[in-house]
Amino acid sequence: MTIIDIIKHKRDGGELSPEEIEFVCAGAADGSIADFQLSAWCMAVFMAGMTDRETADLASAMARSGDSVDLSRFGELSVDKHSTGGVGDKTTLIVAPVMASLGCKFAKMSGRGLGHTGGTVDKLESIEGYRTVLTPEEFIATTEKTGVCVIGQTGSLAPADKKLYAIRDLSGSIESIPLIASSIMSKKLAAGAHSIVLDVKVGSGAFMKDLKEARKLARAMNAIGAASGRKVMCLLTEMDQPLGRAVGNSLEVIEAVDILKGRTEGVEDVYEVCVEICSRLYMLSRGATYEDSREKVVGVLRDGTAYEKMKEWVAAQGGNTGMLDDTSLFAPAGFRFDVPAPQSGFVSRTDTEKIGLAALELGAGRKELGEKIDSSAGIILHKKPGEKVKKGEIVATLCSSSRSKLDAAVGVFNEAVKYSRLFVPSRGASVMDVIE
Amino acid sequence: MTIIDIIKHKRDGGELSPEEIEFVCAGAADGSIADFQLSAWCMAVFMAGMTDRETADLASAMARSGDSVDLSRFGELSVDKHSTGGVGDKTTLIVAPVMASLGCKFAKMSGRGLGHTGGTVDKLESIEGYRTVLTPEEFIATTEKTGVCVIGQTGSLAPADKKLYAIRDLSGSIESIPLIASSIMSKKLAAGAHSIVLDVKVGSGAFMKDLKEARKLARAMNAIGAASGRKVMCLLTEMDQPLGRAVGNSLEVIEAVDILKGRTEGVEDVYEVCVEICSRLYMLSRGATYEDSREKVVGVLRDGTAYEKMKEWVAAQGGNTGMLDDTSLFAPAGFRFDVPAPQSGFVSRTDTEKIGLAALELGAGRKELGEKIDSSAGIILHKKPGEKVKKGEIVATLCSSSRSKLDAAVGVFNEAVKYSRLFVPSRGASVMDVIE
Repeated sequence: MTIIDIIKHKRDGGELSPEEIEFVCAGAADGSIADFQLSAWCMAVFMAGMTDRETADLASAMARSGDSVDLSRFGELSVDKHSTGGVGDKTTLIVAPVMASLGCKFAKMSGRGLGHTGGTVDKLESIEGYRTVLTPEEFIATTEKTGVCVIGQTGSLAPADKKLYAIRDLSGSIESIPLIASSIMSKKLAAGAHSIVLDVKVGSGAFMKDLKEARKLARAMNAIGAASGRKVMCLLTEMDQPLGRAVGNSLEVIEAVDILKGRTEGVEDVYEVCVEICSRLYMLSRGATYEDSREKVVGVLRDGTAYEKMKEWVAAQGGNTGMLDDTSLFAPAGFRFDVPAPQSGFVSRTDTEKIGLAALELGAGRKELGEKIDSSAGIILHKKPGEKVKKGEIVATLCSSSRSKLDAAVGVFNEAVKYSRLFVPSRGASVMDVIE
Repeated sequence: MTIIDIIKHKRDGGELSPEEIEFVCAGAADGSIADFQLSAWCMAVFMAGMTDRETADLASAMARSGDSVDLSRFGELSVDKHSTGGVGDKTTLIVAPVMASLGCKFAKMSGRGLGHTGGTVDKLESIEGYRTVLTPEEFIATTEKTGVCVIGQTGSLAPADKKLYAIRDLSGSIESIPLIASSIMSKKLAAGAHSIVLDVKVGSGAFMKDLKEARKLARAMNAIGAASGRKVMCLLTEMDQPLGRAVGNSLEVIEAVDILKGRTEGVEDVYEVCVEICSRLYMLSRGATYEDSREKVVGVLRDGTAYEKMKEWVAAQGGNTGMLDDTSLFAPAGFRFDVPAPQSGFVSRTDTEKIGLAALELGAGRKELGEKIDSSAGIILHKKPGEKVKKGEIVATLCSSSRSKLDAAVGVFNEAVKYSRLFVPSRGASVMDVIE
C-alpha cells in the first residue's frame, strides 16, 4: 500500500478501504506521509466525495491517531456538546451544570485555540482559583462526585485531524461535508462521551452558509456517531447575530451565571438554545421523550438546582464561588467605551463575524497560539437587532485593559452594526431544525 | 490574488485566467508557493480539467518561468522533434542530419535525465571527442554553418514544469491530458524551434496506453502550438517492442550510422519512423506536400547526403568521424552474454519496459541523477517478435562493463521475452495516426 496508490484510488472515484484510510491517518499523525501528498489526497476526497462508511472510518482513524479519554465507566450517561463556531456562545457554562443536575456526567477537556474569544476553559479561568489542570484521576473523580468537570486539554487528541485540517485550510479543501464531519467527530470520539449534541450554526456569519448543506453535515455526523456506537443529535441553529448580549470571557461567565440564577430577560436566545441542547442530551442519554426531557431541564433551571450545581462544580475545581454569588467581584476592564447610536430608529443588523473581530481586537481572544487572554475584555450589546434606539443612546459597551486596543476596536465595532429607520424583524439564535 | 483562491476557483470548475496561471507557475518556479498547495492545485486541475486556452496558457507560463533558446533568426526553418519515451529510440541521431541536409536548422539542447538509456547527448558522447558543451555563440554558429547542433542542456528550461512534474509524480496527478500536454510543450516552447513533430508512443509498454487518449493528447499539444505561433504535428506510433535492434548508447549510435549508410535490413521500423518524422518536419517548415517531402527525405538518405551531413556535424562538434566510417572502433563492452532461445518456435513478445529495465541494469541508463553512464552497455536483439528461432539459437547479446551487472540483467531480460510454437504477427513501431 502506498499513498500514491491511495490518492489515485480516490481520485478515480473509488471507495477507500478501512486500511487505506488508516494508512493516511497514521501517516498524517507520524509525519511519514509528506504534506504535499496529504493535500493532494484531501483535494481528491473533496472532489470525489466519500461514502458514509468511508467518512465514519476516517473519523474513527483520526480519533485513534492520538490520545483519547476513557469515559466508558459512565456509560450512556456521559454527555458532551459541541458548537461549530459562534460568537458569544457560552452555552457549555450552562449546559454542564444542568446536565449534572439531571444525573448525567459532563466531563470535558477543552482546547485553547485561536478565536474571537477564548475557549470554555479560558472563560472559566476568569473565576479566581479555578483549576484547569487536574490529573486524569482527579478529572474522573470530580466527574464521579459532582457530575461535571471541565479542564484544559492535555495530550494530543486526534493529531491526524489537526494535521489534515491545517493543510486543508491552506490548500483550498475545507468546505467538504465528509471532511468537516469527520474532523468534528474525530475529536468528539476521542473525547469519550457517549451521548453528543452538536449545535451547527447556520447563516451568513456562520460556519455553514445554507441550511441544505448544514443538514447534509448533520446527517454525516449522525452517521459517524452511529457507526462508532455513539448517540448523536444535531441542532441547526440560525446565527445572524451574536448569542446573548455578552461577548468576552468574564462577561460571558457573568451572563451564564445570571441565566442560571433565572435572569433571562434580554438573553432568551441563550436560554432557549441551552434548553434545547440539554433536552436533546437528556433524550439521548436517558431515552426520555422530548417533552419529559424539556420539563426536567426547565425544572432544574427554574428551581436553582442547576445554579447550585455550578457552584458545587466550581468549588470542586478550586474556584471562588463568592464571585458567582456576587458577579460584581469579577475585575472590570480598566478601559470602557460606550458606543452611541449615530441615528434614531432600529438596530437592523449586527454582523456576527465583525462583532467577533472587534472582541478579538479588544483582547478577548487569541490571534496567535499561546497568546495571553484579557479576561475582562469584550463587548456588552445593549441593543440587538430589532430593538429601538434614539440617536446618542448607548448601543454597546466595549471593554479592554488596553487604551489603544479599545480605540482600535471602536471602528471595527461600528462597521458591524447597521441601523434603519423602519423596524426590521430579527430571528436571533433560533433552532431551525433538529437532525436525529 | 492568492493561491488558495486559485485552487478553489479550479476546484469549483472555473476557468483560470492567464494571470492566475502565471501566478501558479511563477510561484512554482521561485518557491513562493508551498509544495502542498501546488499538489492540491494539480489535483484540482486533474479532476476538473482545463480548457484548450488554459492548457496553452499553462504551457506558455511554464516556458516563460525559466531560460529559453532564441532560434527566431532561423524562422520556420528551425525544426525539433520529441518522442514521449521509448526504448531503443535513436531517431534524433538520424532525423537531425536528414533535416540539415534539406536546409532546415536542427539546434537542440538535450537533457540528461533518468532513463533506461542515456539521452541523445549521452549517446553522442560515445563518439570520441564529441563536445556537448558549447557557448551559446558556438551553438548558434554551428547550427548556422552545418544546419545541426546538439549539446547538453544549460540553464534552466521551464523550471515551473520541472517542479510541478516532480510533485505530480509523487502525489498521483500525472495522467492528465492538459497537464501532460502543457508539460511536454512548455519545454518545446522554451527550446525555441518553430516547426515541431511530436512522436507519441502508444501501447501497453508506452506512455499513453490507448489510442483514444493519445489522440486527445496530440490534439491538446497541437492546440498549444497553434496558440503560441508554432507549427506542431503529432505522430502516434505503436510501440509494443523496442525500436530497432540496439538498446544502449554506443550501440544505438552504430545502428543509426548504419541506417544513414543505407543499411536498413532488420531495422526497417527505425528507418520508417525517421522518414515519417522527417517528412512531417519538412512539410511544416517548407509548406510542401507529404509526397514531395517524403521523396526529398528518402533521397538524402539514399544518396548518402544525410550520412555526409552527420560526419560534418560530428566533426563540427569535435567528434572523431573515423568512428562513424568504421563503427568497429567504438569500444566494445568488456563483458557480453549471448542469450540462447529456451525453445524452438517464434519470439512472440518482447516487453518494451522490461527490455528497458534490463538495459538499465546493464549500466546503459541512470537510476539516479548525475550517475555516470556505461557507453558500451546495452542489448542487441538478434530476434524480434514474429521471428523464427531454434532452441539454443542466440536471441540477444547483452553487453556491460561490469560482470555483476551483466549477471543481474540476464534474469530481467529473460522475463521480457516470450516464445510461442506458432507464428504471432507483430506490427513493430508502425505509425498509427497523424494528428495535424
